[in-house]
Amino acid sequence: MIGVAVLGAGRIGKIHARNVALNPRCRLVAVADPMKEAAAALAGALGAEAMTDARAAIARPDVQAIVVGTPTDTHVDFTLDAARRGKAVLCEKPIDLDIKKADAAVAEIEKLGAKVMIAFNRRFDPSAQALKKAIDAGAIGDVHQVIITSRDPSPPPATYTNSGGIFRDMTIHDFDMARFLLGEEPVAVVASASCLVDPEIGKSGDFDTLMVILTTKSGRQCHINNSRKAVYGYDQRFEVFGSAGMLMNDNLRATTLRGYTESQTEIRDPLLNFFLERYDAAYRIELDAFIDAVADNRPMPVTARDGRQALRLADAALESATTGRAVKV
Amino acid sequence: MIGVAVLGAGRIGKIHARNVALNPRCRLVAVADPMKEAAAALAGALGAEAMTDARAAIARPDVQAIVVGTPTDTHVDFTLDAARRGKAVLCEKPIDLDIKKADAAVAEIEKLGAKVMIAFNRRFDPSAQALKKAIDAGAIGDVHQVIITSRDPSPPPATYTNSGGIFRDMTIHDFDMARFLLGEEPVAVVASASCLVDPEIGKSGDFDTLMVILTTKSGRQCHINNSRKAVYGYDQRFEVFGSAGMLMNDNLRATTLRGYTESQTEIRDPLLNFFLERYDAAYRIELDAFIDAVADNRPMPVTARDGRQALRLADAALESATTGRAVKV
Amino acid sequence: MIGVAVLGAGRIGKIHARNVALNPRCRLVAVADPMKEAAAALAGALGAEAMTDARAAIARPDVQAIVVGTPTDTHVDFTLDAARRGKAVLCEKPIDLDIKKADAAVAEIEKLGAKVMIAFNRRFDPSAQALKKAIDAGAIGDVHQVIITSRDPSPPPATYTNSGGIFRDMTIHDFDMARFLLGEEPVAVVASASCLVDPEIGKSGDFDTLMVILTTKSGRQCHINNSRKAVYGYDQRFEVFGSAGMLMNDNLRATTLRGYTESQTEIRDPLLNFFLERYDAAYRIELDAFIDAVADNRPMPVTARDGRQALRLADAALESATTGRAVKV
Amino acid sequence: MIGVAVLGAGRIGKIHARNVALNPRCRLVAVADPMKEAAAALAGALGAEAMTDARAAIARPDVQAIVVGTPTDTHVDFTLDAARRGKAVLCEKPIDLDIKKADAAVAEIEKLGAKVMIAFNRRFDPSAQALKKAIDAGAIGDVHQVIITSRDPSPPPATYTNSGGIFRDMTIHDFDMARFLLGEEPVAVVASASCLVDPEIGKSGDFDTLMVILTTKSGRQCHINNSRKAVYGYDQRFEVFGSAGMLMNDNLRATTLRGYTESQTEIRDPLLNFFLERYDAAYRIELDAFIDAVADNRPMPVTARDGRQALRLADAALESATTGRAVKV
Repeated sequence: MIGVAVLGAGRIGKIHARNVALNPRCRLVAVADPMKEAAAALAGALGAEAMTDARAAIARPDVQAIVVGTPTDTHVDFTLDAARRGKAVLCEKPIDLDIKKADAAVAEIEKLGAKVMIAFNRRFDPSAQALKKAIDAGAIGDVHQVIITSRDPSPPPATYTNSGGIFRDMTIHDFDMARFLLGEEPVAVVASASCLVDPEIGKSGDFDTLMVILTTKSGRQCHINNSRKAVYGYDQRFEVFGSAGMLMNDNLRATTLRGYTESQTEIRDPLLNFFLERYDAAYRIELDAFIDAVADNRPMPVTARDGRQALRLADAALESATTGRAVKV
Repeated sequence: MIGVAVLGAGRIGKIHARNVALNPRCRLVAVADPMKEAAAALAGALGAEAMTDARAAIARPDVQAIVVGTPTDTHVDFTLDAARRGKAVLCEKPIDLDIKKADAAVAEIEKLGAKVMIAFNRRFDPSAQALKKAIDAGAIGDVHQVIITSRDPSPPPATYTNSGGIFRDMTIHDFDMARFLLGEEPVAVVASASCLVDPEIGKSGDFDTLMVILTTKSGRQCHINNSRKAVYGYDQRFEVFGSAGMLMNDNLRATTLRGYTESQTEIRDPLLNFFLERYDAAYRIELDAFIDAVADNRPMPVTARDGRQALRLADAALESATTGRAVKV
Repeated sequence: MIGVAVLGAGRIGKIHARNVALNPRCRLVAVADPMKEAAAALAGALGAEAMTDARAAIARPDVQAIVVGTPTDTHVDFTLDAARRGKAVLCEKPIDLDIKKADAAVAEIEKLGAKVMIAFNRRFDPSAQALKKAIDAGAIGDVHQVIITSRDPSPPPATYTNSGGIFRDMTIHDFDMARFLLGEEPVAVVASASCLVDPEIGKSGDFDTLMVILTTKSGRQCHINNSRKAVYGYDQRFEVFGSAGMLMNDNLRATTLRGYTESQTEIRDPLLNFFLERYDAAYRIELDAFIDAVADNRPMPVTARDGRQALRLADAALESATTGRAVKV
Repeated sequence: MIGVAVLGAGRIGKIHARNVALNPRCRLVAVADPMKEAAAALAGALGAEAMTDARAAIARPDVQAIVVGTPTDTHVDFTLDAARRGKAVLCEKPIDLDIKKADAAVAEIEKLGAKVMIAFNRRFDPSAQALKKAIDAGAIGDVHQVIITSRDPSPPPATYTNSGGIFRDMTIHDFDMARFLLGEEPVAVVASASCLVDPEIGKSGDFDTLMVILTTKSGRQCHINNSRKAVYGYDQRFEVFGSAGMLMNDNLRATTLRGYTESQTEIRDPLLNFFLERYDAAYRIELDAFIDAVADNRPMPVTARDGRQALRLADAALESATTGRAVKV
């Protein structure tokens, strides 16, 4: 039975803590958050101990695995602290906003041989897993093109200014999925980015509408499109085109209901609104995969290096959008 | 906090017990099953007490609600025992295979004013709830026709001989859904039944392939079709046609994956195989609805009389299939 | 080059005449209609001769094939007149409203060995042809159940009183499709019929909402549902369920457009409104099949006996709806 | 009645000639092709005169409109010849492979005020028309992103070497659709192109797999992906995402048939194989739109300048794919 401490009792920490509690191979030992009440509420509901000091939680002898769900600028510190103590880590994305800091962290993690997994939850969505499995089974021959459509239902609140910009905050998930589905590392990035949703976003130097093309060494291509505001809900679609066919994943809806009226047919529900609902199963499967890898002493399914690579692509895309050049990576 | 005892530690008892454990408004106190090991295993996993005597479980002062998941011929006895003791009951369908016994039970339950709910799980499927809500909101005007397609992936094992026949065992769910969706009581039943799947079923006097038409007093109609064997999986579809439109519910699948190959397009997964997977959410929502009605002292969402009405329609359909006449109910 | 005369310059006559003109193996020689202007307009547009006397058109030596698109009560007379003269006939459905008259006509046609085809257009819809071909190729094993959904967008005008009632006018198409898809003759019919759309229809002794079950000797079943008013358009769906799978045909729409808005997703166009649009291709393929059978001296793809059988089922369904009994056929 | 001459009796000439013959506002006067037999066969079947000299056909006094379906390198010459003689022209795409020649032609056409339409058939597809109409009606607010998926079923024969490369031959259609749907001129182009389908294509200096991003002045974006080989058929999909919703057009299939088997569900037909089948209706509507514009003296729905703009985007995309830079246009 693996003892787990969850760092951060916010939105994402709650998800992870609940999934730790549901997993029969581990036990939720502690929840740490500087906001005392938040830690107490979450820990109390799940029968764990509330703490305010993350480092103390990491250091506990009854804790073998850490889930890092704290603000981005603490990810590397907590992860390395845990790694140095020989603990396994599931760290939220992004590993950091600064590629140099990320590089240094990955180097140390790899040198330590530490078990660190980056929480790219979308890989663990049942449809994404089925898609990857079908690709790997050769269902569509060689992969030629990947199309990723990824649009949020609405922009983050104006207070969310430390995101690192849309490429590092939002597109980073898509860069990881691109690598997951392409089966090869991208070597060139071109991007176009605009501000069409909210001028305030533009004033802060960020974008809300973008398109990217990644190209791999052998010439495989991946297109990503993002918008911060899809009025019809959280839009998450994946298409993989290959020499022998095509595979597609569509959005999820709460029900199968379809309506026919005098003026319209096949009317369906809106999409599941946002990532917590849409990736509910994915978060649980992700946590289970982490615990299984720890318990069975197997390699992490998503590594710190994966986190670094996605960040590198985000930086390159931002550079391309700004300079109008293809950026080699 | 409502104390709950689950009677029966079989397939369906496990589902209910798990859902009792997940519901924060109740507590799983005991699991009773004459098979000592089964009771112990289920109770142990969920932190409850294992018992072998159902009546002792019903009588416990720390138990206010009973879930009856035992063989059909014990449903009425355990339900009445609990009702007489003032306990709330969630009883699996059918209430009984004998309409006279069902009638007597309903009469006593109603006289007692007892809280008894029949576990017609399909009503609680999220898509069924959305369908009913849309009908009630007038989305399609007056209901004119209901089409229920309901096919099992494979016949029950030959040992399952006390089912009461396909109409009372399988179609009974559809009769309940018909009443749920029609918004009026059926007054006439016609049916056609055959044995096309397995001759052994016919030899035992039962059918495996059937079609029914129900007609209400105002002339609304409902068609039900059943087969004991749909090779593509558990097929559960609902269509409601009205004066102002149509609503449809389709099957569920494990993923959204669609494949395109040289010879085929839009290829999707098989359907979820059978009722435990297909109605996983429905079972949980059903249990929650039961507990809410008990805790808030509100009417049961599905009553013993609903259970009796479905049985009456099953008897009438069997009679029609045998005699070739419309049977009035 | 087969010379063709089209009898009747109304809605259906126009369709057939246009398709005759498009077929390179035949030539439209004459259009006959007692309404002089109608005949002249249609014949003029297609380079044929306008006539007012149908019998004169039938008798023309330059005419080898007759298309009967006149009112129902003239179908048998014109068909027999043509058959006796050795001409091939494509006769609109129904062959007649009176089963005795239909029986006599079929007997004479068969005795003459005449080439008479009944215009059950739906069989020739490309999707229906593909469905039948797949069934015949064994794609779903043995047929067990057929479900036919067939709803008109709106009732016929009140002046359309000689239709013979909904079973003989509208359901007759579905009875033919049932026979086409079941692969066996129905031997028993049960039906339920109501008047829910327009009370005037009920006052005239007819129905507007109905459900039927047909059963074949081996126990195969077919369900048909009809409504005279589907506000969302002409609804034509077919489902065939067998021992090894299922096949379905859906409705057609004018475009593939799907819309997503703040409140709804997957919104599609209304259905093609009515039979002339929906079965546009079917009418053309039907005419081509008729001409091919004539030119190549092959058996008619739909015979007068097929027309008679559908009428017999219509009569039986009406009797069942009225008496509440299964009617043997 | 407008007299029409069709130049070119090949695959595309046949389509246009048939549609001229079907249009009641014009008359097919002549078909001209240096291949005498081809001209004779096509003209003969449609009751027109066969000619071998295109210029003689253009000069005929009974001809007011010319359809140019000849090899690309003759497009400009025949179009200008006709324009100078005051005749209307429907010219196949591309107007030319050389932007300078195209520029000169457009300049002269505009100076002459000549009626010249470029045959971008996809704009006239009923689904594309419905899509454009919905956008213009404000159904999705402001357009933010357009996604065009356009894949051929198989590469052109090796003998088809004068195509000008994939960007000018294949993507040019997509550039036109991008302009049609974006509602603004693209000002920047980035592209990535590879050879993954057939190494021979790469040896000839061309590509078979590509992705493009177009950006307009206000920041709207359009992604195009192309492949020369989609094994599942001719893939033509369009998605337009806006501030108030999304619109999508899917592929067409020959039938609505869907199959369910033991291992798969929702199996549909392959796509319509290639452009002649897929855009059958579009070609007819395009011809009708041309004739209507000529007969009613209205502006051409697609102009020579539209043809030039698409070519300019093709050149820019090729430059971007080669240099790795965004190209301004």
